[in-house]
Amino acid sequence: MSELAVTPRSQDFSAWYNEIVVKAELVDNPERTPVRGCMIIKPYGYELWEAVKSGLDQRFKATGHVNAYFPVFIPMSFLQKEAEHVEGFAPELAVVTHGGGKELEEPYVIRPTSETIIGDAMSRWIQSYRDLPLLLNQWANVVRWEKRTRPFLRTSEFLWQEGHTAHATYDEAQAEAMQMLDIYADFAINEAAIPVIKGQKSNQERFAGALASYTIEAMMGDGKALQAGTSHNLGQNFAKAFDISYTDINNELQYCWTTSWGVSTRMIGAIIMAHGDDQGLRLPPRLAPIQVVMIPIYKNDDQKAEVLAVVETIGRQLQGAGIRFHVDRRESVSPGFKYNDWEMRGVPLRIEIGPKDVEKGSAALARRDIPGRDGKQFVDQAVVIDKVNETLTAIQSNLLQQATEFRDARRHEVVGDYQRFSEIIRGGEWALTWFSGSAEAEARVKEDIQAVSRCFPLEQPHPGETGPCIVTGEPTDRMAYFARAY
Amino acid sequence: MSELAVTPRSQDFSAWYNEIVVKAELVDNPERTPVRGCMIIKPYGYELWEAVKSGLDQRFKATGHVNAYFPVFIPMSFLQKEAEHVEGFAPELAVVTHGGGKELEEPYVIRPTSETIIGDAMSRWIQSYRDLPLLLNQWANVVRWEKRTRPFLRTSEFLWQEGHTAHATYDEAQAEAMQMLDIYADFAINEAAIPVIKGQKSNQERFAGALASYTIEAMMGDGKALQAGTSHNLGQNFAKAFDISYTDINNELQYCWTTSWGVSTRMIGAIIMAHGDDQGLRLPPRLAPIQVVMIPIYKNDDQKAEVLAVVETIGRQLQGAGIRFHVDRRESVSPGFKYNDWEMRGVPLRIEIGPKDVEKGSAALARRDIPGRDGKQFVDQAVVIDKVNETLTAIQSNLLQQATEFRDARRHEVVGDYQRFSEIIRGGEWALTWFSGSAEAEARVKEDIQAVSRCFPLEQPHPGETGPCIVTGEPTDRMAYFARAY
Repeated sequence: MSELAVTPRSQDFSAWYNEIVVKAELVDNPERTPVRGCMIIKPYGYELWEAVKSGLDQRFKATGHVNAYFPVFIPMSFLQKEAEHVEGFAPELAVVTHGGGKELEEPYVIRPTSETIIGDAMSRWIQSYRDLPLLLNQWANVVRWEKRTRPFLRTSEFLWQEGHTAHATYDEAQAEAMQMLDIYADFAINEAAIPVIKGQKSNQERFAGALASYTIEAMMGDGKALQAGTSHNLGQNFAKAFDISYTDINNELQYCWTTSWGVSTRMIGAIIMAHGDDQGLRLPPRLAPIQVVMIPIYKNDDQKAEVLAVVETIGRQLQGAGIRFHVDRRESVSPGFKYNDWEMRGVPLRIEIGPKDVEKGSAALARRDIPGRDGKQFVDQAVVIDKVNETLTAIQSNLLQQATEFRDARRHEVVGDYQRFSEIIRGGEWALTWFSGSAEAEARVKEDIQAVSRCFPLEQPHPGETGPCIVTGEPTDRMAYFARAY
Repeated sequence: MSELAVTPRSQDFSAWYNEIVVKAELVDNPERTPVRGCMIIKPYGYELWEAVKSGLDQRFKATGHVNAYFPVFIPMSFLQKEAEHVEGFAPELAVVTHGGGKELEEPYVIRPTSETIIGDAMSRWIQSYRDLPLLLNQWANVVRWEKRTRPFLRTSEFLWQEGHTAHATYDEAQAEAMQMLDIYADFAINEAAIPVIKGQKSNQERFAGALASYTIEAMMGDGKALQAGTSHNLGQNFAKAFDISYTDINNELQYCWTTSWGVSTRMIGAIIMAHGDDQGLRLPPRLAPIQVVMIPIYKNDDQKAEVLAVVETIGRQLQGAGIRFHVDRRESVSPGFKYNDWEMRGVPLRIEIGPKDVEKGSAALARRDIPGRDGKQFVDQAVVIDKVNETLTAIQSNLLQQATEFRDARRHEVVGDYQRFSEIIRGGEWALTWFSGSAEAEARVKEDIQAVSRCFPLEQPHPGETGPCIVTGEPTDRMAYFARAY
C-alpha cells in the first residue's frame, strides 16, 4: 500500500477515519502519543481548529458575549453541589492530589466542564438586575477520562468553548439557549457545509443538571449521527446550588436562570466524516487552512524559471485577494505525488501551471470535490482570481448539497412499525418516529438495537398531530430521530 | 474611601497593584477565588490578553511558525530525562494520580512547560534535514505550584505561548533564539509601549536545561525589574535526552539543536505596572480593549435626544474607522463617576458630548495620559475621527516616552564601588556594572542586597573593554544589570 493509500471508506469507515486523521497530518499517530487518550493536534489540524474558533468567536461577540478565563482546577466539593451534575461526571474525572510537593487538603479535579466554578463566580458578580444578562464564554481545554478514545471524537483531553450565561427570567434563558443553537447551526451549515438538524434531547440524553438540552445533529458518511454542538437551559438548578441571585427592580431577591453551550474539537471529526472520501479529506473552503495549492510543473531549468514566474504572479494576486494558498515547491517528489498529497489534506482547489500554460497564458484549476476531468478547467491567467473565487464558492455549496442529499436519502419516517424501525437503524440510517420519550421506552430501543434517540427536531413534520409511540404504542405528540451515533 | 479610590502608587506600590487589578476588573478578587493561587481572568482582562495574543501570533506566523497543541499531561518519566530540567521544576509540579476512578500506573504532571512532551514528538516527526527547521508554537495553560501568588505576576496556573523549534545547526538555533527575542522586544516596545532591554541571563538565572537564556527586561513603576519574555537556545540538551535527530545531506545521523521561547499573562502585569497611575490603569491604545469611551452629558430628555444623536453619528464614524469604542449610556451614575470609572480601566481617550457641543458642533477629547485641562481639547465634530486617530497615536508614543524617561533616570552605571552599587539597588533602581557572572559572586549579591543579575545587555555600553567585577574585582568583559525584581 502506498504511503497515501487508505482503506476505502465504504469497506471500513472506522479504519478509514483512523488512517485519514494521521495521513492528512491532523493529529499525531494516537498509538505513538505518550499520554493515553490525549491528542497531539498537529499544525494542519490546529489551523483547522483556529478557523472553527474564529468563525464561532465572531458570532459570539456579535451577539454580546465576552470571553473570560477560569481555573483549570475545580474543588471536588463544587461538583458535589449539583446532584445530577456530579453523578454525570464522577466516572470521568482526573484528580490532582499533590501540588508543590505536598498532598492537597482538598483534591482538585481537572475541569470536565466549568458550570460549577463559573456558577460560583456568578454568585459573586451578580447582585442586581442591572448586572443581567451576564453573557460569558471560555475557550479552554477540558478533561474527561475515557476508556476508548478516537482523535477529535472522544479524547480524554479536548479543546472547546463553553458559554455560560445568567438571566433574570426563564424566557430570557430559553431565548439564549435557542439563540446559541441557531448560531451553532448557522456555523455548521454555512462554514462547515454540514447540514444539521436542530432538536431537543430526551430526558435520558440531556446534560447532567440541565432542564432542557438542545443539539445540532449531523449525519456522518457512514450514516451514524454525531452531536456537533449543544446548548442547555439549566433552569435554576445551578443558580440554586451556587446561590446565583439578584435583587429585582422591586428590590426582591430572585434566583437567576442560567444556560450553557459548547462546541469542541469534535466539530473537526464531524467535518472529516461528513465530507471525506477515499482520497482523503475534503475541506469546506471557508474553513480550509489552505484554500488553493499551486503545483508548478517543469522538466528542466528553463521551464522551471518560466513556470515559477507565472506561479509567483498568480501568488501575488491570490495574496491580494485574501485567498489562503500554498505553493508546493518540493523538488524531491513528483507532481502526481503532490496531487495525491494535497487531495489527502482536502485542499479544495489545485492550480497546475506547466510549460503549456506559460505558452498559452492559461492555468489548470482542479476541484477537490469533483474528481477527474469533470472537475478540471483551463482558464485564462488574466481572470484566474475571479475563477478561483467563483470555484471556491461553488465547492462550498456543492459540499453542503452533497451532504444534504446523502442525509436526506438516509432518513425515513416510520409510523408504528417497530420491525421496520429496527431495520432502518440496523442498516445504518436514521428513523424519524413518534416517541413518548420515557426512560423505559428509550432503554428498550437501546437494548434491542444499540441506538438512542438523537433528538426531537424543533421543526416537527406534523405539528399539532399525534401518533403512536414506536415503542409503547401510546399516543404522543412529538417525533424523534433515532440512529446509531458517535 | 470611595469605590474607585486606590492606595496611591507612591505610598504602597504593592497595595496599589493588588487593588487596581480588581478595581479595573481585570481579575476576580484573589481572596475570593476558590482555587488558591489561580486566576479568574474577567472579561476586560481577557480582552487585553486577546490583544497581546493577537499581536504576538501575527508576528509568529509572519516568521513561519505554526501553532499546534500537545497534551496538558506529561508522564513523570519525561521530566526526568533532562536532569537540570526536572530539578528546576520538581518543587512546582501538580500531580494527577487518579483518572476515571482508578489510580494511574504512572502519575502525570500538569505541564509546567512542554519541552519534554514536544521533544518526544519532535523525535518522531523529524527524520531528515528536509524536515528542518521545525517551527512550532503552542498557546496553552500551564501550572507551576506557587506559595505566594499575585494576579498576572505569579500564579499557579497561567496562560502563555511556548515556542519550540528544531534546527540543523547551532547557528540556526541561535539565530532563531535571537529572532524571537527581537520579536518580543518589538511587541513590548511598539504595542505595549514598554521599553525593554534585551540581554542574556547569567548561568544561575538561565532556564533549567538551556545552553543560553535571553530575556527582555522592563522597569516597573516602582523601579523593580520584570522579565517580560524569554528565549532559550537549548543546545542539544533536549535533543540528546529525547533523541531528536536527523539524517543530514550526507546521510549521517545528527542531533538537532532546539530552542524554546515564551511570553505569558505576566505581560499584562508588566503593562499595568509600567504605565498605571494613582487613578488606575493607563493602557496603550494599540492593545486597549476600548480605545475610546464616549460619555453623553445631559440634564433633560430634550438634551438627551440631541446629545445621543451626535453620539450615535460619531459612533458610526468610529466604527467605520475601525476604532474600538464604547458608549457609556448608564443612567444610574453621573458623568463624573463615569470619568473616574473609565480612567480606572485605563481607556486612552474619552469623548464627552454635552448640550454645548451639540450647539457648537464640537466634541471634548480628554486624554488619559495627560490629566486635567492640559489633556483636553475641543474639536470640530467634522474632524473628530482624524483628531481621535492623531491623539491615539500621540498617547501611544507618550506612554513609551514616559516609561523610557522614567527608566533612564533610574539606571546607573557603577564601576568598582560595591557600596554605591548596593545603595542604588536598595534605593529601588538599576545598576549596570562589570560582572564576572560566577555563581559565588551572584550568590553574594543575593545575600547582601536581595537582588540578582537581570541580564548582560546584548548592547554592551563599552564593547571590547574590560573592567573589575563589582563583586570579586577580577577583570571581566561584560556588564550586567542588577535590580530587585518581580
